Formats: sequence, C-alpha cells, structure tokens
Amino acid sequence: MSDEITPELAALVLDAQPFSKLLGARITEFEHGRAVLEIEAREDLLQQNGYLHGGVLSYAADNSLTFAGGSILGANVLTGGFAIEYLRPAIGRVLSARAHVVESTRRRALCRCELVMVDDDGEKVVAAAQGTITLLG
Amino acid sequence: MSDEITPELAALVLDAQPFSKLLGARITEFEHGRAVLEIEAREDLLQQNGYLHGGVLSYAADNSLTFAGGSILGANVLTGGFAIEYLRPAIGRVLSARAHVVESTRRRALCRCELVMVDDDGEKVVAAAQGTITLLG
Amino acid sequence: MSDEITPELAALVLDAQPFSKLLGARITEFEHGRAVLEIEAREDLLQQNGYLHGGVLSYAADNSLTFAGGSILGANVLTGGFAIEYLRPAIGRVLSARAHVVESTRRRALCRCELVMVDDDGEKVVAAAQGTITLLG
Amino acid sequence: MSDEITPELAALVLDAQPFSKLLGARITEFEHGRAVLEIEAREDLLQQNGYLHGGVLSYAADNSLTFAGGSILGANVLTGGFAIEYLRPAIGRVLSARAHVVESTRRRALCRCELVMVDDDGEKVVAAAQGTITLLG
Repeated sequence: MSDEITPELAALVLDAQPFSKLLGARITEFEHGRAVLEIEAREDLLQQNGYLHGGVLSYAADNSLTFAGGSILGANVLTGGFAIEYLRPAIGRVLSARAHVVESTRRRALCRCELVMVDDDGEKVVAAAQGTITLLG
Repeated sequence: MSDEITPELAALVLDAQPFSKLLGARITEFEHGRAVLEIEAREDLLQQNGYLHGGVLSYAADNSLTFAGGSILGANVLTGGFAIEYLRPAIGRVLSARAHVVESTRRRALCRCELVMVDDDGEKVVAAAQGTITLLG
Repeated sequence: MSDEITPELAALVLDAQPFSKLLGARITEFEHGRAVLEIEAREDLLQQNGYLHGGVLSYAADNSLTFAGGSILGANVLTGGFAIEYLRPAIGRVLSARAHVVESTRRRALCRCELVMVDDDGEKVVAAAQGTITLLG
Repeated sequence: MSDEITPELAALVLDAQPFSKLLGARITEFEHGRAVLEIEAREDLLQQNGYLHGGVLSYAADNSLTFAGGSILGANVLTGGFAIEYLRPAIGRVLSARAHVVESTRRRALCRCELVMVDDDGEKVVAAAQGTITLLG
C-alpha cells in the first residue's frame, strides 16, 4: 500500500507529538505488525516511591499499540481504547514497550504490548496491555 | 479509620510524584469515595494534531482512579490495572478526571472515572475508564 | 429516528438469540440510553462453589452493554469489546445487569453496566463493566 | 509445588462447573502456564445472526484465563477481571480459547487468550482477551 508507514515516517510522527518529546520517547523498532517504543526512567517520570509512574507505562502502552496498529493500517488511525494490567513495580533504567498486532481486518487491528523494564542485569515484564486500533474515515 | 486520607494528605502524595508535577496535575476535589484531578492542556501535553495526548488522558485515568480508591482504602494501595475507552478528540482548556468508587470491599475498590475536557463554553466527556484498586499487604 | 428500538423490538432481538434463551435472559427495562437484563441464578448457571459463573456475568455485561448502546444507535450495532471487573462472589436469586450510555457520538456509544445480585433481603453489586458499541456500515 | 494442578484435576474442576457442562466446554490442553478450552458451536450458543454469541466467547475467555493462571498459581485462585476485544463475527465449527500466562509473581498471573474459530478449512482469531488471576487467601 502506498500509505504504509516507514520507520522514518513513524519517527517523524512521534517527533511531532509534544507529549512524546516531553517524555523523551523514541521508536527503536518499527516494522509491519510491530513497534517498540523506549523511554529512559528519568527522575521526573517517577512516582512517590521511586518507581516509574503508572501513567508513563499507560502512555507507552497507548502509543506503542497505536504505532503497531498504524504499521498495518497506515497513519490515519485512532486508538479506540485499551486495557492495561500492572504486575510489578516498574524499576529499571529503561522502559521498553513492545507492541505487536495479534490479528487485523481491513479496518481494525487488535494489538498487544508488553511493558518491560530493562536494567543492566536483565529485564522484567512489569505490565501488559491490549487494545484495538481503528482506521479513520 | 486512622489511615483515612485527608484532602491535604492527598495533595502531598500527588506533590511527591515527580511525573504528576511534570504534567502540572492537581487534585481539585477529594472526599470519601471520590477524587477529581485536573491538568491544563499545555502545549507540551499535546499530540500531533493539537489534541491532548491519549497518554495524558490515560495518566489522569490511572491516577484519579487510584486516589478515589485510596480515599476509601487508605494510602497503602496499588492499581491492579484499568481499561480506558476514547470517544472524542480531547480539545479544550483543562482536563478534569472525575473518579468515584462504584463499590468496595475491605481490600478492593472498583472505581470509574470520566475524562472531561472543559472549555470556556462548556465541557465534554472525551473518554472514560474503569479499574480496581487493591489494598497492599 | 425511524430506527430507534422500542422495548418490544429489543425483546424480540433478545428472543432471537438462542444463547440468551438458553440462559433464560430477559430485558426488564429498556429506554433511550438504558437497558436492564435479568437472569435467574439457576443451578445450571453456577460454577464449582455454587456461585453464578463468571461467564454468566460476562455474558450479561456484553449483552446489556450492547442493548444500551443500541437504544441510542439503533439495531445495527456491534460490540467492539468490554472490560469487566469482578468484586465479589455472585450469590443471590437473580442477576440484574444494569447498563447505561455514559456518552455517545453519532457512531459510537460508551456504555457501562453494574452487575447486581438480587436476593430476598437486598442486593449487591458484584461486578461492573465498560465497553464501546459501534454503529455498523 | 504439591498444589500444582494436573490435567486430570483441571478436567474435574471444569466438570464441577454446571455452566461449563451446559455449554459443553472441555479442556483440550493443560500444562504449566497454558490452557486450551474448546466448545462446539452448537445451535443454542448462537446469537440472532447465526454467529457464536459474544457471551460464549467471553465465557471462554474468562474460564481459559482462569485455568491458565491456575496452572501456575494452583487451584485456589480468582479472576480479578479481564478485557475482551472482538474483531470478527465468530463463524465456524469449534471455538478454541487458547490461554497462556504472560508473566507471573508469587500471587498473581497476567494471562492472555486468543479466541479462535476452527472450521474444516482452517481457523481464524475472532477475539482476544487479557486479565489477571490472583491467588486467594
């Protein structure tokens, strides 16, 4: 399809989101049916106990699901909604939100992501999300 | 209960969250079974089309649900997860996340919030969320 | 609108669902933006501990949300999905799934329901759900 | 662990659920971290258009997630809740609900399932779900 998003276009779209810039998000992988978004666990993204704030995780879920869906449906998509489940405190150096398309039709993509905290000595899934991305218009 | 959270304590907890300060969130109402969290729709919280970013909405859902649950269960709570549905683009001057407890047991509170964009000429529900808050320990 | 569903039509639609007949579901209230679906807690709808099975609750959530959305959008709708949170064991004589539309646009309705167990001495919310209903075509 | 569930015990638990017997559900695979539950698309499980009713899918999601979580946490678990997304009409001969544990802690298991309709000429994912299973007591 002519409107398939390239990794370069995906990076431009993310860069055009002021909120994603504020959080320092970057797309580290982008291919058909898959997108990975990463965020450094900066001091100003934490909650009161020193963990990455749940709202940063939910932002990363929302955005990585949308980019994964967009990798198949094109840029003109919206996120209908998603559900996120938190399993562990988000401790580590970098949050990696790894999203993929489970299944899609011509107008909708059912997507999931794992929210993984990466540290120098390994990584752990701390949360996971699922949502549907819809083609607009 | 001696560990019931006062509005003053709730404000202190929010203030101790660096990410909430980064977003300029404030608690504007807090009582038994109910919490309202507000955020100005600043330029740096938008997405590429000029709407408030979905990640800001999901942050506000997460945090307002947690404070509503905490208003009944006390400060020692965690958010198990939540589901958010987006209905409209988030356009307006202020986001008001209005959370309440639907029902609770001794250890869990089932909470909901409406995400409302307030503008000079009125307000609109743009999204809604539901989740469960659990007492720790 | 000419395609607004009457309570009589809603009852006919439910009656045309073999699975709803198998469960003995009936619509007890139906108006613009609201639908109530009830099910007797028959022996064959229970799980191994004698509570109403979670699958009966999730059926009632799914269907009551759809009827509530249809009460505004018309009969030609589909349920995009929903999230359900269980709070208590479902004990009682009758399950009452009380759904309403939180907010709607021309093509989508954001709906919620409370799943209430009714007994001779009162009633209790045992679960709650939220989902989006979409106009087809 | 002494309380690890065997496939035989899982089948007994399912058999002790009257609602699962009513639907003709059976466990066709059960191992550590994974459970598959199947249901024949009988006439009395359909909705008004001849598709398998969404409530049958949500039952299968609920139960397969619970068995997957129980395969790791033991028999004494409850389902906190789940989110289900419907992608396609459920057409086919058999519903296969394939659940697995994404990640678990000592007390909680984050589980997902794909809801697959199997027909003589192939199979299709028609919906997917995600939820958290919690150890009781």
